[in-house]
Amino acid sequence: MTASSPLSIVVLAAGKGTRMKSRLPKVLQPLGGRPMLAHVLHTAGALCAERLVLVSGHGGDWVRQFADQHAPALLPNTQLIHAEQPQQLGTGHAVQQAGAHLPDRGTVLILLGDVPLVDAETLQQVVACCSDSQIGLLTAELVEPHGYGRIARDAQGRVQAIVEHKDANAQQRAIREINSGIMALPAHRLKAWLNRLDNDNAQGEYYLTDVIAMAVADQVAVQAHCLPVHQSWQVGGINSPAQLAEAERRYQRLQAEAAMDAGVRLVDPARFELRAAPGSALPGALTCESDVEIDIGCIFAGDVRIGSGSRIGAYCHISQADLGADCEVLPYSHIDGEAAGVVVGNGARIGPFARLRPGARLAEDVHIGNFVEVKNSTLARGAKANHLAYLGDAAVGERVNYGAGAITANYDGANKHRTIIEADVHIGSNSVLVAPLTIGAGATVGAGSTLSRDVPAHALAVTRANASVVPDWQRPAKKKD
Amino acid sequence: MTASSPLSIVVLAAGKGTRMKSRLPKVLQPLGGRPMLAHVLHTAGALCAERLVLVSGHGGDWVRQFADQHAPALLPNTQLIHAEQPQQLGTGHAVQQAGAHLPDRGTVLILLGDVPLVDAETLQQVVACCSDSQIGLLTAELVEPHGYGRIARDAQGRVQAIVEHKDANAQQRAIREINSGIMALPAHRLKAWLNRLDNDNAQGEYYLTDVIAMAVADQVAVQAHCLPVHQSWQVGGINSPAQLAEAERRYQRLQAEAAMDAGVRLVDPARFELRAAPGSALPGALTCESDVEIDIGCIFAGDVRIGSGSRIGAYCHISQADLGADCEVLPYSHIDGEAAGVVVGNGARIGPFARLRPGARLAEDVHIGNFVEVKNSTLARGAKANHLAYLGDAAVGERVNYGAGAITANYDGANKHRTIIEADVHIGSNSVLVAPLTIGAGATVGAGSTLSRDVPAHALAVTRANASVVPDWQRPAKKKD
Amino acid sequence: MTASSPLSIVVLAAGKGTRMKSRLPKVLQPLGGRPMLAHVLHTAGALCAERLVLVSGHGGDWVRQFADQHAPALLPNTQLIHAEQPQQLGTGHAVQQAGAHLPDRGTVLILLGDVPLVDAETLQQVVACCSDSQIGLLTAELVEPHGYGRIARDAQGRVQAIVEHKDANAQQRAIREINSGIMALPAHRLKAWLNRLDNDNAQGEYYLTDVIAMAVADQVAVQAHCLPVHQSWQVGGINSPAQLAEAERRYQRLQAEAAMDAGVRLVDPARFELRAAPGSALPGALTCESDVEIDIGCIFAGDVRIGSGSRIGAYCHISQADLGADCEVLPYSHIDGEAAGVVVGNGARIGPFARLRPGARLAEDVHIGNFVEVKNSTLARGAKANHLAYLGDAAVGERVNYGAGAITANYDGANKHRTIIEADVHIGSNSVLVAPLTIGAGATVGAGSTLSRDVPAHALAVTRANASVVPDWQRPAKKKD
Repeated sequence: MTASSPLSIVVLAAGKGTRMKSRLPKVLQPLGGRPMLAHVLHTAGALCAERLVLVSGHGGDWVRQFADQHAPALLPNTQLIHAEQPQQLGTGHAVQQAGAHLPDRGTVLILLGDVPLVDAETLQQVVACCSDSQIGLLTAELVEPHGYGRIARDAQGRVQAIVEHKDANAQQRAIREINSGIMALPAHRLKAWLNRLDNDNAQGEYYLTDVIAMAVADQVAVQAHCLPVHQSWQVGGINSPAQLAEAERRYQRLQAEAAMDAGVRLVDPARFELRAAPGSALPGALTCESDVEIDIGCIFAGDVRIGSGSRIGAYCHISQADLGADCEVLPYSHIDGEAAGVVVGNGARIGPFARLRPGARLAEDVHIGNFVEVKNSTLARGAKANHLAYLGDAAVGERVNYGAGAITANYDGANKHRTIIEADVHIGSNSVLVAPLTIGAGATVGAGSTLSRDVPAHALAVTRANASVVPDWQRPAKKKD
Repeated sequence: MTASSPLSIVVLAAGKGTRMKSRLPKVLQPLGGRPMLAHVLHTAGALCAERLVLVSGHGGDWVRQFADQHAPALLPNTQLIHAEQPQQLGTGHAVQQAGAHLPDRGTVLILLGDVPLVDAETLQQVVACCSDSQIGLLTAELVEPHGYGRIARDAQGRVQAIVEHKDANAQQRAIREINSGIMALPAHRLKAWLNRLDNDNAQGEYYLTDVIAMAVADQVAVQAHCLPVHQSWQVGGINSPAQLAEAERRYQRLQAEAAMDAGVRLVDPARFELRAAPGSALPGALTCESDVEIDIGCIFAGDVRIGSGSRIGAYCHISQADLGADCEVLPYSHIDGEAAGVVVGNGARIGPFARLRPGARLAEDVHIGNFVEVKNSTLARGAKANHLAYLGDAAVGERVNYGAGAITANYDGANKHRTIIEADVHIGSNSVLVAPLTIGAGATVGAGSTLSRDVPAHALAVTRANASVVPDWQRPAKKKD
Repeated sequence: MTASSPLSIVVLAAGKGTRMKSRLPKVLQPLGGRPMLAHVLHTAGALCAERLVLVSGHGGDWVRQFADQHAPALLPNTQLIHAEQPQQLGTGHAVQQAGAHLPDRGTVLILLGDVPLVDAETLQQVVACCSDSQIGLLTAELVEPHGYGRIARDAQGRVQAIVEHKDANAQQRAIREINSGIMALPAHRLKAWLNRLDNDNAQGEYYLTDVIAMAVADQVAVQAHCLPVHQSWQVGGINSPAQLAEAERRYQRLQAEAAMDAGVRLVDPARFELRAAPGSALPGALTCESDVEIDIGCIFAGDVRIGSGSRIGAYCHISQADLGADCEVLPYSHIDGEAAGVVVGNGARIGPFARLRPGARLAEDVHIGNFVEVKNSTLARGAKANHLAYLGDAAVGERVNYGAGAITANYDGANKHRTIIEADVHIGSNSVLVAPLTIGAGATVGAGSTLSRDVPAHALAVTRANASVVPDWQRPAKKKD
C-alpha cells in the first residue's frame, strides 16, 4: 500500500511549554542553535508536501513570524498555511483547527513541533504506511516506557488501541512499544473522525489518539512503523530544559558521527558542536577535505569549510569561515565571519588566543598570533601579526611584519577609516597608525611611533621624543594607610 | 515509630585516606570546591540536632580548625563538640571516643565524613526509623555489591545481620542490599553496646557494625531505610582520587539538573560546574532569572546572579558576580569578583577573552571586548573598552570610548592611584593615563599619548613628537650565524 | 607450558584503512598524539623479542621511515626488519611476507598495527600459552560479538575452530568469545602452515585464521587467553575515525586513571588529555608530586612535571614544561616548551590567558598575568608581568615590575636581540624596549617610553613629548552615508 497524493502536513506548535519556564513559546526553544520548529519544518520540507498547516497558539505571533520568515528556506516546495489554536484543549482540538485548511483527499501527516529529531526517512515510511484504508502510525520501542501510551496489538500483531499509561493494566504496562503521536491518515477519514472527537474525559481535552480507536472501529487498519530501541530518540518530545539538553547532546552526537563518517578526525566526538549560524533556520554545515583534525571542545556555527590537512586546536570557536589547506589553528581561537565571512589561506597559522572578525581575509601563510584581533582587513601572503595587536579596516601587503602591540586607529570617534600597509613594511612595536593612512612599500615604522600621515615607500618613519634620563631617581614610597 | 528527642550526631572524620596520597586529611579533600566535611556538616546542620560530635584523628588540628571556623555557617543551630581518635582502631572505636559527649537519652545519628553526598531528607528518614526499641539503618541497593557488607534479612524481611563480604557465603553474596555505615540509634542502648564492643577479629579493630548483631540479640529491631539503585550514590564513600572524581561528577550533575529544573538552559549539563567560592564552606549558588542560556564548559563559583535573557558563552568562568538582564558574555570570559564582587549591568556585552576582576562595576550597555582587563573600576552606561586594554582603579563616564591598547597606569611602583574619565571622553589607541588623573567631560586624548596631568573638559590632549622620516632607509640585514 | 625462545614478532601494518579517508596509511593515524604503530611497537618493545618483522604495504615508505626513525626509542632491544606486502591479499598473505625473516625455532607473536591498545602483560600471557605443541591465541568476550569470528570450543573447552560470523550458525553466533587475530605460534609449525595456506574462498584472500584449523588438524592445541568483557577494548581494531575516537577516549581514560591512582586530583577524568609531544613516538609523561589538582579540560603533552601543591586551572594546555611546587596556573594558560622547555618556579602564578613559550624560565614567585606572552626569557624571583605584555629574548631581574602593555622589541626585522632588565627595575606601561638594551638595576622607565639606549642603574628614563592641549576641540562628526 502507498500513500495517496497529495500530501498535507499538520504541525502542532501551540504549546506553551510551562516547564521550560521561558518567555519563548516552546517550539522556538533552540536546538543546535535554531528553534526546534526549524528542525521540524526543515524535515517536513524534505517530504515535498503540497501544503503544511502550522497550528500555533502560545506566542503565536512569534511562531508565525518565524515560520513566515524562514519558509522559503525550510519549505521551498510547500505552501505554508497558518491555523490558530487560541486555547490548548488537546491534540485533537489542535488538529481540528487545521481541518478547514486540509483537502478532502490525499494523506495528512501530523507532526509535533516539540519532537524535533525525527528524520525524513522515518516520516516517509510512516506516510508510506497510509492509504485510503489504512493509517500509518509512528511508534517506538523504549527500554523504559513508563508514562507513555502503549501500543496494544491483537494476536495477529495488528494495532488495536493506544492505551494511556494511567489506564493501562499490568500486562499492558509491560508493553514497550509506545505511541509517538506522529501519524499519517487518509484526509477524508481524518476529517470525519475529527468531527466525532469529544472531550468526555478527566482532563476535558480532545485527544488525537482517539482517532485510532475510531479507525479500528471503522475497520481501518493501523499500520505501525516501529522504531527500534536504538532509534527511539527520534520520537523524544521536549518538555523541559533537561529534555532539551538531552536532545541537544543526541543531535550533536549525530553530527559528530556524520563528520567522522566523512573522514574528519574528531579527538572527542562528545565534545564537538555544530550549530546554525545565529538567526539562521538552516543547520550549520561543516565541510572538510581530507585529513582534517579537530581537537576537543570546538564549536562550529553556520557554514564552515576547512581544507585538507588543516588542524583545529582545542576550544576553538569557528563560524561562517572558509579555511584553506594545511592551516594550523591553535587553541582558544575565535573566528567568526558573521555576514561578511572570514577567509584563511592555505598554510596560515592562527592563534592561540587569536580573534578573526567579519571581513578578515588572510592569504596564504599569514600568521596571526596571540592576543591579536583582525577585523575587516585583508592580509596578503606571508604577512604576520604575532603578538597583542589590532588590525581593523586595513589592507596589509605581502610579508609585512606588524609588530607587537601595534594598532590601527581606524575610528576617529565618528567614522571608520582605512589603513593601507604595502608589501614588506615593518611596523614597530606599540605603534599606532591613525587612519586614513598609507605606509609605502618597504617602509619601516619605528617602535612606539604614532603616525597620522602617509609614509613614503622604503622610508623610516618614527615619532619619538628624546629620552630624558634623570640619574638617581627616587621612586614614590609606599604610603602608610 | 518516631525518633526520640534530642538528636545528637556523631561524624567520623579521623581517617587518613592513604589512597588519596595527600598531605590533607581525607575529609578536607575538596568536592565542589569545598571540603567533603563541609558537605557532611552542612547536611547535618539541616537536621537541627542539639549537638554534633566531630571525631577527628589524622590531621586533627586542620579538621578542628576548619570545623570551628565554619560551624556558624554550617551548624547554626547545633553545638559542635570535638572528640579525638588518636589511633584509628575501627569505626566502633571512633564512636567510643564520642561516647562521653553524648547524652543518655534521645537519638544518636552516626555519619561518615567521607560519605559527603547523602542528603538531609534521607537522614531524616533514617532518624525517623529510630526509637527506644529500634535502630534506623541506612542501606542501599547496588548493582555491583562486591566488597560491601550485605544486609541479611529473615523471612519476614527483618534485618538479622550485616555480613561482611569476606565472611559471606555464595547466597549472601547474591544479596544486593548493602550497609552504608550510617545509622540512628537510641542513645542509652548505643552507649551500652559501645561498652561491649571488642576487637577480637582478624584486623584487631572495633567495628561499629557489631552493634547491629548486639541489637538483634537484644531484641531491638533494625529498621533499614534502603535507597534504590538510582539513589545509591548517596552512600558512596570516598577513598581515592577516582572515587572523589566520581562524586564530583555526581554532585555537579545534581546541580546541573537543579539549574535546568529552575528553567536554566544548559547546552550540556555534563559540562557545567558550580562550586563554592574559594575559602567558603557553603555551596555555590547560581540564581538565574528566566531565559538564561549557559553554553558548554562554564564554571561558576560562589554567589552568581544572572538576569533574564542573558547568555553566557562557552568556557566562561564566573565567580562572585551579579549580571543583569540581556547581557551577552562571549566565550572565554573570566569574571571573578572575589570579595569585592563584580557587577554587570543590563544589556552589557563582555568578551570574548575579557577579564573582569574584583570591583569591576559595569552599568547598562557597557562593552568590554577582547583582551581587556578591568579591575576596581566603574564604567557608566554605554562606556566601551573593546580591544586590548587595561582599566584599573578608574571611574569611567557614560559613552566613553576607551581605545585599543589604552592603559591606566594606576601603580607608581608603590601606591595605587585613581583615574577619572568623565562622560563622552574619547581615549586614543595605545594611550597611557598616568594616575592620579582626571580627563574632563567630552575631552579627546590623541592616539599614542601618555598623560600625567588633568585634561580640561572638551579639550584635545596629545603628546606626540613630530614624525621624522628618513627616506630610503636600509633595515638591518640578517646576520649569518 | 612456556614459550620457546627466541621470540620473534610480526606486526601487520600494510592496510590502507579506506574508511579513514586519509592520505596517511592507517597505522600512522594518531592516537594520544602519536601514530597507532608507535603504540604497537612500544608495547612490542617491552617484550624484548629478538627481532620484529614489520610488514608494510600502503604508504610503506612512510611506515618504514617512521619505524626506522623511532626504533631506537621504541625497540631498544629488538632488531627491526622490514617486509613488504605490496598487495593486500589477506592476513595470511601478510604473514607469509614475513616468513623469510623468521627463524625456524622459537615463538612467533603476530600483532596487528591497527590494534594499538593491547598491553604488554596480555601479550606476555599469550606468548606464555605457546610452546612447541601449542598455540597461544588472544580472544575476548564481547557483549555484542556481531561481525567477529567466534571461538568454537569442544565439550572440554578446547578451542576447535574460529568460525567467521558469516559462516556461523545461530548457536555459534550466540558465542560471545571472539578472535582478536593476535596469536603466538611455534615458528617451525607456523612456517609449515603458511606454506599450506590457500585463497580458495569468496574473497580470494589468504586468511591467517586458517592456521588455527590446521593446528587443530595437526593435533596442536590452541590455548586461548580470553580477555573478560571489561578488558575487551584491548583487542579493538581501528578501521574508521569513529573507532579511532573511541580508542582515543579509552586511552585517555586509562591515563586519567593512572594519574588518579598516583594521587593526582582530576576534577573530571573524562576531560583530561595526556599526549605525546609533537613528533615523538613515546607517550606523554605527566609526573606530579603530591596534592596536585588539575581542573577540567586540561591538555598535557610530552614530559610535564608538576611540583607538590600546584593547581592547574581549567582548559590549560601544558607541554614540555617543569612546574615547581605551589604554583597556581589560572584558566586558559598555554604553556608549551617545545624543544627548549619551560621552567616555572615554586609559588609562581600564571594566567589567566597567559602564554609561556619555549625557553621561558621563571624563578620562584614570578607572576605572569593576563594576555602576557613570554618567550626565551628568564625572569628572576618575584618578577611580575601582569597585564598585556610581551617579553622575548629578555633577562629580567628580581622584583622587576614589567608594566601593562610593555614590549621588548627583540626583532629588528632581520635579527633577534636581547633585553636585560636588572633587579628592581620598574618598566612603565606601554613602554617599548628596543633591543639590544640594558636597563640598570633599580631604574625606572616612564610610561609610554620607547628606549633604544641603555639606562643607568637607579635612573629614571622617559621619552615623552610635552602634552599639547587644544581647548574646545571638535571631534569629527559622523558622516552621512
